[in-house]
Amino acid sequence: MATDSWVNETLYAEWGQRFLVGRELARVKSDFQDIMVFESPSHGRVMLLDGVVQITERDEFVYQEMLTHVPLLAHGEAKRVLIIGAGDGGVLKRVLQHRNVEKAVMVEIDGEVIRLAKEHMPMIAGDAWNDPRAEVIVGDGIDYVRTAPAGSFDVVIVDSTDPIGVGEVLFTEEFYHNAARLLSERGLIVNQCGVPFMQAEELRDTNKRRAKSFSDTWAYVAAVPTYVGGFMTLGWAAKDATLRSHDAATIKARAEKAGILGQTRYWTPEIHVGAFNLPPYIAENL
Amino acid sequence: MATDSWVNETLYAEWGQRFLVGRELARVKSDFQDIMVFESPSHGRVMLLDGVVQITERDEFVYQEMLTHVPLLAHGEAKRVLIIGAGDGGVLKRVLQHRNVEKAVMVEIDGEVIRLAKEHMPMIAGDAWNDPRAEVIVGDGIDYVRTAPAGSFDVVIVDSTDPIGVGEVLFTEEFYHNAARLLSERGLIVNQCGVPFMQAEELRDTNKRRAKSFSDTWAYVAAVPTYVGGFMTLGWAAKDATLRSHDAATIKARAEKAGILGQTRYWTPEIHVGAFNLPPYIAENL
Repeated sequence: MATDSWVNETLYAEWGQRFLVGRELARVKSDFQDIMVFESPSHGRVMLLDGVVQITERDEFVYQEMLTHVPLLAHGEAKRVLIIGAGDGGVLKRVLQHRNVEKAVMVEIDGEVIRLAKEHMPMIAGDAWNDPRAEVIVGDGIDYVRTAPAGSFDVVIVDSTDPIGVGEVLFTEEFYHNAARLLSERGLIVNQCGVPFMQAEELRDTNKRRAKSFSDTWAYVAAVPTYVGGFMTLGWAAKDATLRSHDAATIKARAEKAGILGQTRYWTPEIHVGAFNLPPYIAENL
Repeated sequence: MATDSWVNETLYAEWGQRFLVGRELARVKSDFQDIMVFESPSHGRVMLLDGVVQITERDEFVYQEMLTHVPLLAHGEAKRVLIIGAGDGGVLKRVLQHRNVEKAVMVEIDGEVIRLAKEHMPMIAGDAWNDPRAEVIVGDGIDYVRTAPAGSFDVVIVDSTDPIGVGEVLFTEEFYHNAARLLSERGLIVNQCGVPFMQAEELRDTNKRRAKSFSDTWAYVAAVPTYVGGFMTLGWAAKDATLRSHDAATIKARAEKAGILGQTRYWTPEIHVGAFNLPPYIAENL
Protein backbone atom coordinates (compact mmCIF):
# COMPACT_ATOMS: atom_id res chain seq x y z
CA MET A 1 0.00 0.00 0.00
CA ALA A 2 1.37 3.38 -0.96
CA THR A 3 2.00 6.09 1.61
CA ASP A 4 -0.90 8.53 2.06
CA SER A 5 -3.59 6.13 0.92
CA TRP A 6 -6.71 5.39 2.95
CA VAL A 7 -7.62 2.27 4.91
CA ASN A 8 -11.34 1.48 4.91
CA GLU A 9 -12.54 -0.61 7.83
CA THR A 10 -14.47 -3.60 6.47
CA LEU A 11 -16.47 -4.54 9.60
CA TYR A 12 -19.82 -3.54 8.04
CA ALA A 13 -20.68 -3.90 4.38
CA GLU A 14 -22.53 -0.62 4.00
CA TRP A 15 -21.00 1.86 6.44
CA GLY A 16 -17.73 2.34 8.24
CA GLN A 17 -14.75 4.46 9.10
CA ARG A 18 -11.63 5.20 7.13
CA PHE A 19 -8.18 6.37 8.13
CA LEU A 20 -5.59 8.24 6.17
CA VAL A 21 -2.42 6.17 6.40
CA GLY A 22 0.69 8.19 7.14
CA ARG A 23 3.01 5.20 7.13
CA GLU A 24 2.43 1.48 7.04
CA LEU A 25 4.43 -0.29 9.75
CA ALA A 26 3.51 -3.96 9.42
CA ARG A 27 1.34 -6.27 7.41
CA VAL A 28 1.54 -9.88 8.56
CA LYS A 29 -0.51 -12.98 7.88
CA SER A 30 -0.36 -14.97 11.11
CA ASP A 31 -1.70 -18.49 11.66
CA PHE A 32 -4.98 -16.89 12.77
CA GLN A 33 -5.57 -13.61 10.99
CA ASP A 34 -4.29 -10.73 8.88
CA ILE A 35 -2.60 -8.14 11.08
CA MET A 36 -1.89 -4.60 9.97
CA VAL A 37 -0.25 -1.77 11.91
CA PHE A 38 0.01 1.76 10.55
CA GLU A 39 0.61 5.30 11.62
CA SER A 40 -2.44 7.59 11.37
CA PRO A 41 -1.90 11.36 11.47
CA SER A 42 -5.08 11.74 13.56
CA HIS A 43 -5.03 8.62 15.79
CA GLY A 44 -1.36 7.63 16.18
CA ARG A 45 -0.53 3.96 15.82
CA VAL A 46 -3.46 1.76 14.73
CA MET A 47 -3.77 -2.05 14.65
CA LEU A 48 -6.28 -3.88 12.46
CA LEU A 49 -7.11 -7.60 12.57
CA ASP A 50 -8.79 -8.95 9.45
CA GLY A 51 -9.61 -5.38 8.40
CA VAL A 52 -11.26 -4.42 11.71
CA VAL A 53 -9.83 -1.73 14.01
CA GLN A 54 -8.70 -3.25 17.33
CA ILE A 55 -6.84 -0.42 18.93
CA THR A 56 -5.54 3.06 18.26
CA GLU A 57 -2.91 4.80 20.31
CA ARG A 58 -5.02 7.90 20.83
CA ASP A 59 -8.30 6.44 22.05
CA GLU A 60 -7.35 3.09 23.59
CA PHE A 61 -7.72 4.54 27.07
CA VAL A 62 -11.51 4.59 26.81
CA TYR A 63 -11.93 0.91 26.09
CA GLN A 64 -9.13 -0.34 28.35
CA GLU A 65 -10.19 1.71 31.36
CA MET A 66 -13.82 0.63 31.13
CA LEU A 67 -13.03 -3.02 30.43
CA THR A 68 -10.65 -3.21 33.39
CA HIS A 69 -11.51 -0.78 36.16
CA VAL A 70 -15.25 -1.45 36.17
CA PRO A 71 -15.08 -5.21 36.94
CA LEU A 72 -12.11 -4.92 39.30
CA LEU A 73 -13.62 -2.09 41.36
CA ALA A 74 -17.09 -3.67 41.26
CA HIS A 75 -15.56 -6.77 42.81
CA GLY A 76 -13.53 -4.73 45.27
CA GLU A 77 -11.10 -7.42 46.36
CA ALA A 78 -9.92 -8.96 43.10
CA LYS A 79 -6.49 -10.51 43.60
CA ARG A 80 -6.35 -12.98 40.70
CA VAL A 81 -7.33 -11.80 37.23
CA LEU A 82 -7.53 -13.83 34.01
CA ILE A 83 -7.30 -11.93 30.72
CA ILE A 84 -8.25 -13.68 27.50
CA GLY A 85 -7.01 -12.04 24.31
CA ALA A 86 -5.87 -8.41 24.64
CA GLY A 87 -2.58 -9.16 22.90
CA ASP A 88 -1.61 -5.49 22.81
CA GLY A 89 -1.08 -5.57 26.58
CA GLY A 90 -3.30 -2.59 27.36
CA VAL A 91 -5.68 -4.48 29.64
CA LEU A 92 -2.74 -6.15 31.38
CA LYS A 93 -1.27 -2.73 32.14
CA ARG A 94 -4.55 -1.45 33.61
CA VAL A 95 -5.08 -4.60 35.69
CA LEU A 96 -1.61 -4.29 37.20
CA GLN A 97 -2.27 -0.66 38.15
CA HIS A 98 -4.53 -2.07 40.90
CA ARG A 99 -2.38 -2.43 44.01
CA ASN A 100 -4.42 -5.33 45.35
CA VAL A 101 -3.91 -7.52 42.27
CA GLU A 102 -1.47 -10.33 43.07
CA LYS A 103 -1.58 -12.26 39.81
CA ALA A 104 -2.64 -11.47 36.24
CA VAL A 105 -2.65 -14.30 33.72
CA MET A 106 -3.04 -13.27 30.11
CA VAL A 107 -3.81 -15.89 27.45
CA GLU A 108 -3.53 -14.64 23.87
CA ILE A 109 -3.88 -17.09 21.01
CA ASP A 110 -1.86 -15.13 18.46
CA GLY A 111 1.78 -14.58 19.39
CA GLU A 112 2.16 -12.34 16.36
CA VAL A 113 -0.24 -9.79 17.88
CA ILE A 114 1.93 -9.60 20.99
CA ARG A 115 5.13 -9.39 18.97
CA LEU A 116 3.83 -6.62 16.71
CA ALA A 117 2.33 -4.68 19.63
CA LYS A 118 5.67 -4.82 21.47
CA GLU A 119 7.53 -3.68 18.37
CA HIS A 120 5.19 -0.98 17.03
CA MET A 121 2.92 0.02 19.93
CA PRO A 122 5.12 -0.25 23.03
CA MET A 123 3.31 2.67 24.66
CA ILE A 124 0.16 0.57 25.07
CA ALA A 125 1.48 -1.97 27.60
CA GLY A 126 4.40 0.05 28.96
CA ASP A 127 6.33 -2.05 31.50
CA ALA A 128 3.47 -4.47 32.13
CA TRP A 129 5.16 -7.34 30.29
CA ASN A 130 7.96 -7.35 32.89
CA ASP A 131 5.79 -7.09 36.00
CA PRO A 132 6.50 -10.08 38.28
CA ARG A 133 2.74 -10.48 38.86
CA ALA A 134 2.13 -10.99 35.12
CA GLU A 135 2.08 -14.37 33.41
CA VAL A 136 1.71 -14.13 29.62
CA ILE A 137 0.75 -17.33 27.82
CA VAL A 138 0.57 -17.68 24.06
CA GLY A 139 -2.14 -20.28 23.79
CA ASP A 140 -5.80 -21.08 23.42
CA GLY A 141 -8.05 -19.38 25.98
CA ILE A 142 -10.62 -22.15 25.47
CA ASP A 143 -8.15 -24.80 26.63
CA TYR A 144 -7.03 -22.61 29.51
CA VAL A 145 -10.49 -22.14 30.97
CA ARG A 146 -11.26 -25.83 30.48
CA THR A 147 -8.37 -26.89 32.69
CA ALA A 148 -7.96 -24.04 35.18
CA PRO A 149 -8.75 -25.10 38.76
CA ALA A 150 -12.19 -24.24 40.18
CA GLY A 151 -12.30 -20.93 42.00
CA SER A 152 -8.83 -19.92 40.87
CA PHE A 153 -9.71 -16.40 39.61
CA ASP A 154 -11.77 -13.48 40.89
CA VAL A 155 -12.29 -11.65 37.59
CA VAL A 156 -12.13 -12.78 33.95
CA ILE A 157 -11.73 -10.11 31.24
CA VAL A 158 -12.30 -11.16 27.64
CA ASP A 159 -10.88 -8.70 25.13
CA SER A 160 -11.51 -10.49 21.87
CA THR A 161 -12.56 -9.82 18.32
CA ASP A 162 -16.28 -10.06 17.57
CA PRO A 163 -18.06 -13.43 17.81
CA ILE A 164 -17.05 -14.26 14.27
CA GLY A 165 -13.78 -15.85 13.10
CA VAL A 166 -11.08 -16.42 15.72
CA GLY A 167 -13.13 -14.92 18.54
CA GLU A 168 -16.28 -17.01 18.07
CA VAL A 169 -15.35 -19.74 20.58
CA LEU A 170 -15.09 -17.13 23.35
CA PHE A 171 -18.84 -16.55 23.25
CA THR A 172 -20.15 -20.13 23.54
CA GLU A 173 -22.15 -21.68 26.36
CA GLU A 174 -19.25 -24.02 27.07
CA PHE A 175 -16.88 -21.10 27.51
CA TYR A 176 -19.17 -19.35 30.00
CA HIS A 177 -19.75 -22.63 31.85
CA ASN A 178 -16.02 -23.05 32.32
CA ALA A 179 -15.60 -19.40 33.26
CA ALA A 180 -18.22 -19.79 36.00
CA ARG A 181 -16.37 -22.82 37.32
CA LEU A 182 -12.96 -21.18 37.51
CA LEU A 183 -14.33 -18.02 39.12
CA SER A 184 -14.41 -17.62 42.89
CA GLU A 185 -17.61 -17.14 44.87
CA ARG A 186 -18.10 -13.43 44.07
CA GLY A 187 -16.43 -13.72 40.68
CA LEU A 188 -17.50 -12.06 37.46
CA ILE A 189 -16.64 -11.99 33.79
CA VAL A 190 -16.81 -9.12 31.34
CA ASN A 191 -16.36 -9.19 27.58
CA GLN A 192 -16.73 -6.87 24.63
CA CYS A 193 -20.11 -7.32 22.95
CA GLY A 194 -19.91 -5.02 19.95
CA VAL A 195 -21.79 -1.85 19.10
CA PRO A 196 -25.50 -2.59 19.48
CA PHE A 197 -26.64 0.10 17.07
CA MET A 198 -25.02 -2.00 14.34
CA GLN A 199 -24.65 -5.43 16.00
CA ALA A 200 -27.57 -5.84 18.40
CA GLU A 201 -27.66 -9.60 17.82
CA GLU A 202 -24.18 -9.96 19.34
CA LEU A 203 -25.39 -8.58 22.63
CA ARG A 204 -28.71 -10.42 22.52
CA ASP A 205 -27.32 -13.83 21.62
CA THR A 206 -24.29 -13.81 23.89
CA ASN A 207 -26.30 -12.52 26.82
CA LYS A 208 -28.58 -15.55 26.60
CA ARG A 209 -25.56 -17.82 26.69
CA ARG A 210 -24.07 -16.03 29.71
CA ALA A 211 -27.37 -16.37 31.54
CA LYS A 212 -27.13 -20.18 31.47
CA SER A 213 -24.10 -20.14 33.78
CA PHE A 214 -24.48 -16.89 35.76
CA SER A 215 -27.36 -15.71 37.94
CA ASP A 216 -26.81 -12.05 37.06
CA THR A 217 -26.25 -10.85 33.51
CA TRP A 218 -26.38 -7.35 32.11
CA ALA A 219 -24.20 -4.99 30.08
CA TYR A 220 -22.58 -1.60 30.50
CA VAL A 221 -21.58 0.99 27.96
CA ALA A 222 -18.58 2.98 26.81
CA ALA A 223 -18.33 5.57 24.02
CA VAL A 224 -15.18 4.44 22.23
CA PRO A 225 -14.22 6.86 19.42
CA THR A 226 -12.98 4.24 16.94
CA TYR A 227 -15.55 1.53 17.68
CA VAL A 228 -17.91 3.66 15.63
CA GLY A 229 -21.69 3.51 15.95
CA GLY A 230 -22.47 5.08 19.32
CA PHE A 231 -22.08 3.15 22.56
CA MET A 232 -20.29 -0.17 22.57
CA THR A 233 -21.49 -2.67 25.14
CA LEU A 234 -19.41 -4.68 27.55
CA GLY A 235 -21.11 -7.88 28.61
CA TRP A 236 -21.46 -8.55 32.33
CA ALA A 237 -21.97 -11.92 34.01
CA ALA A 238 -21.66 -12.27 37.78
CA LYS A 239 -22.47 -14.67 40.58
CA ASP A 240 -23.53 -11.80 42.81
CA ALA A 241 -26.05 -9.23 41.54
CA THR A 242 -25.00 -6.61 44.08
CA LEU A 243 -21.72 -6.03 42.23
CA ARG A 244 -23.35 -3.70 39.75
CA SER A 245 -25.38 -1.64 42.20
CA HIS A 246 -22.70 0.13 44.20
CA ASP A 247 -22.95 3.88 44.60
CA ALA A 248 -20.26 6.25 43.35
CA ALA A 249 -18.93 6.89 46.87
CA THR A 250 -18.15 3.20 47.40
CA ILE A 251 -16.47 2.90 44.01
CA LYS A 252 -14.48 6.06 44.67
CA ALA A 253 -13.17 4.75 47.99
CA ARG A 254 -12.15 1.49 46.36
CA ALA A 255 -10.44 3.30 43.49
CA GLU A 256 -8.49 5.42 45.94
CA LYS A 257 -7.33 2.34 47.84
CA ALA A 258 -6.42 0.56 44.59
CA GLY A 259 -4.38 3.53 43.35
CA ILE A 260 -6.64 4.25 40.37
CA LEU A 261 -8.29 7.52 41.38
CA GLY A 262 -7.07 10.45 39.30
CA GLN A 263 -5.16 8.13 36.96
CA THR A 264 -7.86 7.88 34.29
CA ARG A 265 -9.04 9.92 31.33
CA TYR A 266 -12.47 8.35 30.76
CA TRP A 267 -13.36 6.29 33.83
CA THR A 268 -14.62 8.09 36.93
CA PRO A 269 -16.68 6.71 39.82
CA GLU A 270 -19.76 8.50 38.44
CA ILE A 271 -19.23 7.18 34.92
CA HIS A 272 -18.68 3.69 36.36
CA VAL A 273 -22.06 3.78 38.09
CA GLY A 274 -23.85 5.47 35.19
CA ALA A 275 -22.54 3.02 32.58
CA PHE A 276 -25.05 0.41 33.76
CA ASN A 277 -27.97 2.69 32.84
CA LEU A 278 -28.70 1.62 29.30
CA PRO A 279 -30.63 3.55 26.66
CA PRO A 280 -33.86 1.69 25.82
CA TYR A 281 -32.61 0.86 22.33
CA ILE A 282 -29.82 -1.16 23.99
CA ALA A 283 -31.68 -2.48 27.04
CA GLU A 284 -34.34 -4.06 24.82
CA ASN A 285 -31.75 -6.65 23.78
CA LEU A 286 -31.31 -7.97 27.32
CA MET B 1 -22.89 10.20 -8.65
CA ALA B 2 -23.64 6.64 -9.74
CA THR B 3 -25.83 4.33 -7.72
CA ASP B 4 -23.94 2.09 -5.25
CA SER B 5 -21.00 4.42 -4.85
CA TRP B 6 -19.71 5.60 -1.48
CA VAL B 7 -20.02 8.99 0.16
CA ASN B 8 -17.04 9.96 2.31
CA GLU B 9 -17.75 12.49 5.03
CA THR B 10 -15.26 15.35 4.73
CA LEU B 11 -15.50 16.81 8.26
CA TYR B 12 -11.96 15.76 9.21
CA ALA B 13 -9.04 15.65 6.79
CA GLU B 14 -7.50 12.43 8.08
CA TRP B 15 -10.30 10.25 9.41
CA GLY B 16 -14.01 9.88 8.91
CA GLN B 17 -17.00 7.76 8.07
CA ARG B 18 -18.31 6.61 4.73
CA PHE B 19 -21.72 5.42 3.60
CA LEU B 20 -22.68 3.17 0.76
CA VAL B 21 -25.24 5.10 -1.29
CA GLY B 22 -28.24 3.06 -2.28
CA ARG B 23 -29.93 5.90 -4.13
CA GLU B 24 -29.25 9.58 -4.38
CA LEU B 25 -32.39 11.63 -3.71
CA ALA B 26 -31.30 15.24 -3.94
CA ARG B 27 -28.24 17.37 -4.52
CA VAL B 28 -28.93 21.08 -4.23
CA LYS B 29 -26.75 24.15 -3.97
CA SER B 30 -28.73 26.56 -1.80
CA ASP B 31 -27.83 30.18 -1.06
CA PHE B 32 -25.98 28.93 2.02
CA GLN B 33 -24.57 25.45 1.45
CA ASP B 34 -24.45 22.24 -0.57
CA ILE B 35 -27.25 19.92 0.48
CA MET B 36 -27.32 16.21 -0.32
CA VAL B 37 -29.93 13.61 0.60
CA PHE B 38 -29.46 9.94 -0.12
CA GLU B 39 -30.77 6.53 0.87
CA SER B 40 -28.30 4.40 2.83
CA PRO B 41 -28.95 0.65 3.12
CA SER B 42 -27.73 0.71 6.72
CA HIS B 43 -28.98 4.12 8.01
CA GLY B 44 -32.06 4.98 5.97
CA ARG B 45 -32.33 8.51 4.64
CA VAL B 46 -29.24 10.68 5.25
CA MET B 47 -28.77 14.45 4.85
CA LEU B 48 -25.37 16.07 4.41
CA LEU B 49 -24.60 19.79 4.47
CA ASP B 50 -21.31 20.78 2.84
CA GLY B 51 -20.20 17.15 3.02
CA VAL B 52 -20.93 16.73 6.75
CA VAL B 53 -23.59 14.32 8.07
CA GLN B 54 -26.42 16.24 9.75
CA ILE B 55 -29.02 13.58 10.30
CA THR B 56 -29.80 9.98 9.47
CA GLU B 57 -33.22 8.41 9.73
CA ARG B 58 -32.00 5.53 11.85
CA ASP B 59 -30.06 7.30 14.59
CA GLU B 60 -31.59 10.79 14.73
CA PHE B 61 -33.48 9.86 17.89
CA VAL B 62 -30.31 9.96 20.00
CA TYR B 63 -29.37 13.52 19.18
CA GLN B 64 -32.90 14.94 19.06
CA GLU B 65 -34.00 13.38 22.35
CA MET B 66 -30.92 14.58 24.21
CA LEU B 67 -30.95 18.05 22.67
CA THR B 68 -34.63 18.54 23.53
CA HIS B 69 -35.74 16.56 26.56
CA VAL B 70 -32.73 17.41 28.73
CA PRO B 71 -33.16 21.23 28.71
CA LEU B 72 -36.96 21.12 28.79
CA LEU B 73 -37.15 18.72 31.72
CA ALA B 74 -34.25 20.40 33.52
CA HIS B 75 -36.27 23.63 33.37
CA GLY B 76 -39.45 21.85 34.35
CA GLU B 77 -41.91 24.55 33.36
CA ALA B 78 -40.81 25.55 29.88
CA LYS B 79 -43.75 26.99 27.98
CA ARG B 80 -42.00 29.03 25.26
CA VAL B 81 -39.16 27.42 23.31
CA LEU B 82 -36.98 28.98 20.63
CA ILE B 83 -35.25 26.62 18.19
CA ILE B 84 -32.45 27.95 15.98
CA GLY B 85 -31.58 25.80 12.96
CA ALA B 86 -32.85 22.22 13.06
CA GLY B 87 -34.39 22.57 9.59
CA ASP B 88 -35.27 18.88 9.44
CA GLY B 89 -37.98 19.46 12.06
CA GLY B 90 -36.83 16.72 14.44
CA VAL B 91 -36.23 19.03 17.40
CA LEU B 92 -39.54 20.79 16.75
CA LYS B 93 -41.32 17.43 16.93
CA ARG B 94 -39.69 16.54 20.26
CA VAL B 95 -40.38 19.98 21.75
CA LEU B 96 -44.05 19.70 20.86
CA GLN B 97 -44.28 16.30 22.52
CA HIS B 98 -44.09 18.18 25.83
CA ARG B 99 -47.66 18.87 26.94
CA ASN B 100 -46.72 22.02 28.82
CA VAL B 101 -45.16 23.74 25.79
CA GLU B 102 -47.43 26.51 24.54
CA LYS B 103 -45.29 27.94 21.79
CA ALA B 104 -42.31 26.74 19.74
CA VAL B 105 -40.65 29.18 17.37
CA MET B 106 -38.18 27.68 14.92
CA VAL B 107 -35.85 29.92 12.94
CA GLU B 108 -33.95 28.17 10.15
CA ILE B 109 -31.84 30.22 7.78
CA ASP B 110 -31.99 27.83 4.84
CA GLY B 111 -35.46 27.22 3.44
CA GLU B 112 -34.04 24.58 1.14
CA VAL B 113 -33.17 22.38 4.13
CA ILE B 114 -36.79 22.54 5.28
CA ARG B 115 -38.11 21.89 1.80
CA LEU B 116 -35.84 18.89 1.20
CA ALA B 117 -36.51 17.45 4.67
CA LYS B 118 -40.27 17.68 4.07
CA GLU B 119 -39.92 16.03 0.68
CA HIS B 120 -37.39 13.29 1.42
CA MET B 121 -37.39 12.83 5.21
CA PRO B 122 -41.00 13.42 6.27
CA MET B 123 -40.68 10.84 9.06
CA ILE B 124 -38.33 13.13 11.00
CA ALA B 125 -40.79 15.92 11.81
CA GLY B 126 -44.03 13.98 11.40
CA ASP B 127 -47.00 16.32 11.92
CA ALA B 128 -44.99 18.92 13.81
CA TRP B 129 -45.10 21.42 10.93
CA ASN B 130 -48.89 21.65 11.29
CA ASP B 131 -49.06 21.93 15.08
CA PRO B 132 -50.86 25.20 15.99
CA ARG B 133 -48.22 25.84 18.67
CA ALA B 134 -45.44 25.87 16.04
CA GLU B 135 -44.21 28.97 14.25
CA VAL B 136 -41.63 28.23 11.56
CA ILE B 137 -39.61 31.18 10.29
CA VAL B 138 -37.19 31.02 7.39
CA GLY B 139 -34.74 33.67 8.46
CA ASP B 140 -31.58 34.57 10.28
CA GLY B 141 -31.42 33.37 13.88
CA ILE B 142 -28.94 36.16 14.65
CA ASP B 143 -31.48 38.80 13.68
CA TYR B 144 -34.22 37.01 15.57
CA VAL B 145 -32.37 36.89 18.88
CA ARG B 146 -31.30 40.53 18.43
CA THR B 147 -34.88 41.75 18.25
CA ALA B 148 -36.84 39.25 20.38
CA PRO B 149 -38.34 40.85 23.51
CA ALA B 150 -36.50 40.36 26.79
CA GLY B 151 -37.68 37.35 28.77
CA SER B 152 -39.79 36.01 25.92
CA PHE B 153 -38.52 32.40 25.97
CA ASP B 154 -37.79 29.80 28.64
CA VAL B 155 -35.46 27.56 26.62
CA VAL B 156 -33.33 28.14 23.52
CA ILE B 157 -32.14 25.11 21.54
CA VAL B 158 -29.46 25.67 18.90
CA ASP B 159 -29.17 22.82 16.42
CA SER B 160 -26.62 24.17 14.00
CA THR B 161 -23.66 23.06 11.97
CA ASP B 162 -20.24 23.36 13.58
CA PRO B 163 -18.81 26.81 14.38
CA ILE B 164 -17.44 27.07 10.87
CA GLY B 165 -19.24 28.32 7.76
CA VAL B 166 -22.95 29.13 8.10
CA GLY B 167 -23.09 28.15 11.77
CA GLU B 168 -20.22 30.31 13.00
CA VAL B 169 -22.34 33.30 14.02
CA LEU B 170 -24.35 31.12 16.40
CA PHE B 171 -21.35 30.71 18.67
CA THR B 172 -20.31 34.34 19.19
CA GLU B 173 -20.35 36.36 22.38
CA GLU B 174 -22.97 38.64 20.85
CA PHE B 175 -25.28 35.71 20.18
CA TYR B 176 -25.04 34.44 23.76
CA HIS B 177 -25.54 37.96 25.10
CA ASN B 178 -28.78 38.27 23.14
CA ALA B 179 -29.85 34.76 24.15
CA ALA B 180 -29.40 35.66 27.81
CA ARG B 181 -31.53 38.77 27.30
CA LEU B 182 -34.44 37.00 25.62
CA LEU B 183 -34.48 34.17 28.15
CA SER B 184 -36.71 34.30 31.21
CA GLU B 185 -35.40 34.26 34.77
CA ARG B 186 -34.70 30.52 34.98
CA GLY B 187 -33.96 30.22 31.27
CA LEU B 188 -31.22 28.18 29.62
CA ILE B 189 -29.69 27.58 26.22
CA VAL B 190 -28.20 24.39 24.82
CA ASN B 191 -26.28 23.93 21.60
CA GLN B 192 -24.31 21.25 19.83
CA CYS B 193 -20.59 21.61 20.49
CA GLY B 194 -19.03 18.90 18.36
CA VAL B 195 -17.18 15.74 19.28
CA PRO B 196 -14.42 16.71 21.73
CA PHE B 197 -12.19 13.75 20.90
CA MET B 198 -11.73 15.38 17.48
CA GLN B 199 -12.85 18.99 18.09
CA ALA B 200 -11.98 19.87 21.68
CA GLU B 201 -11.38 23.49 20.76
CA GLU B 202 -15.05 23.90 19.78
CA LEU B 203 -16.14 23.06 23.28
CA ARG B 204 -13.36 25.02 24.94
CA ASP B 205 -13.75 28.20 22.91
CA THR B 206 -17.52 28.36 22.86
CA ASN B 207 -17.77 27.59 26.56
CA LYS B 208 -15.68 30.66 27.34
CA ARG B 209 -18.04 32.76 25.24
CA ARG B 210 -21.14 31.35 26.96
CA ALA B 211 -19.59 32.11 30.36
CA LYS B 212 -19.58 35.86 29.61
CA SER B 213 -23.39 36.00 29.59
CA PHE B 214 -24.44 33.08 31.83
CA SER B 215 -23.53 32.36 35.44
CA ASP B 216 -23.61 28.59 34.94
CA THR B 217 -21.95 26.89 31.98
CA TRP B 218 -21.18 23.24 31.47
CA ALA B 219 -21.77 20.50 28.89
CA TYR B 220 -23.48 17.13 28.71
CA VAL B 221 -22.85 14.17 26.48
CA ALA B 222 -24.64 11.88 24.04
CA ALA B 223 -23.26 8.93 22.09
CA VAL B 224 -24.61 9.64 18.60
CA PRO B 225 -23.79 6.81 16.16
CA THR B 226 -23.14 8.99 13.11
CA TYR B 227 -21.43 11.88 14.86
CA VAL B 228 -18.41 9.61 14.99
CA GLY B 229 -15.59 9.97 17.50
CA GLY B 230 -17.10 8.96 20.84
CA PHE B 231 -19.28 11.29 22.88
CA MET B 232 -20.56 14.48 21.34
CA THR B 233 -21.05 17.39 23.71
CA LEU B 234 -24.06 19.61 24.05
CA GLY B 235 -23.20 22.99 25.46
CA TRP B 236 -25.14 24.20 28.49
CA ALA B 237 -25.58 27.80 29.64
CA ALA B 238 -28.11 28.65 32.34
CA LYS B 239 -29.06 31.45 34.69
CA ASP B 240 -29.71 28.97 37.49
CA ALA B 241 -27.05 26.39 38.38
CA THR B 242 -29.55 24.10 40.11
CA LEU B 243 -31.06 23.12 36.75
CA ARG B 244 -28.37 20.54 36.13
CA SER B 245 -28.33 18.93 39.55
CA HIS B 246 -31.77 17.35 39.75
CA ASP B 247 -31.98 13.70 40.75
CA ALA B 248 -33.48 11.05 38.48
CA ALA B 249 -36.70 10.84 40.49
CA THR B 250 -37.46 14.54 39.93
CA ILE B 251 -36.73 14.28 36.21
CA LYS B 252 -38.85 11.15 35.96
CA ALA B 253 -41.83 12.84 37.59
CA ARG B 254 -41.52 15.81 35.25
CA ALA B 255 -41.22 13.52 32.21
CA GLU B 256 -44.36 11.67 33.24
CA LYS B 257 -46.26 14.93 33.59
CA ALA B 258 -44.95 16.19 30.25
CA GLY B 259 -45.96 12.97 28.47
CA ILE B 260 -42.39 11.94 27.59
CA LEU B 261 -41.84 8.94 29.85
CA GLY B 262 -41.68 5.68 27.89
CA GLN B 263 -41.69 7.56 24.57
CA THR B 264 -37.92 7.58 24.09
CA ARG B 265 -35.27 5.21 22.77
CA TYR B 266 -32.13 6.86 24.19
CA TRP B 267 -33.19 9.36 26.85
CA THR B 268 -34.16 8.07 30.28
CA PRO B 269 -34.21 9.93 33.61
CA GLU B 270 -31.01 8.12 34.64
CA ILE B 271 -29.24 8.91 31.38
CA HIS B 272 -30.38 12.53 31.68
CA VAL B 273 -28.75 12.84 35.10
CA GLY B 274 -25.64 10.85 34.15
CA ALA B 275 -24.98 12.85 30.98
CA PHE B 276 -23.59 15.72 33.05
CA ASN B 277 -20.82 13.48 34.43
CA LEU B 278 -18.04 14.07 31.95
CA PRO B 279 -15.00 11.89 31.32
CA PRO B 280 -11.84 13.76 32.37
CA TYR B 281 -10.67 14.04 28.76
CA ILE B 282 -13.80 16.12 28.07
CA ALA B 283 -14.11 17.95 31.40
CA GLU B 284 -10.58 19.34 31.06
CA ASN B 285 -11.90 21.62 28.30
CA LEU B 286 -14.33 23.40 30.61
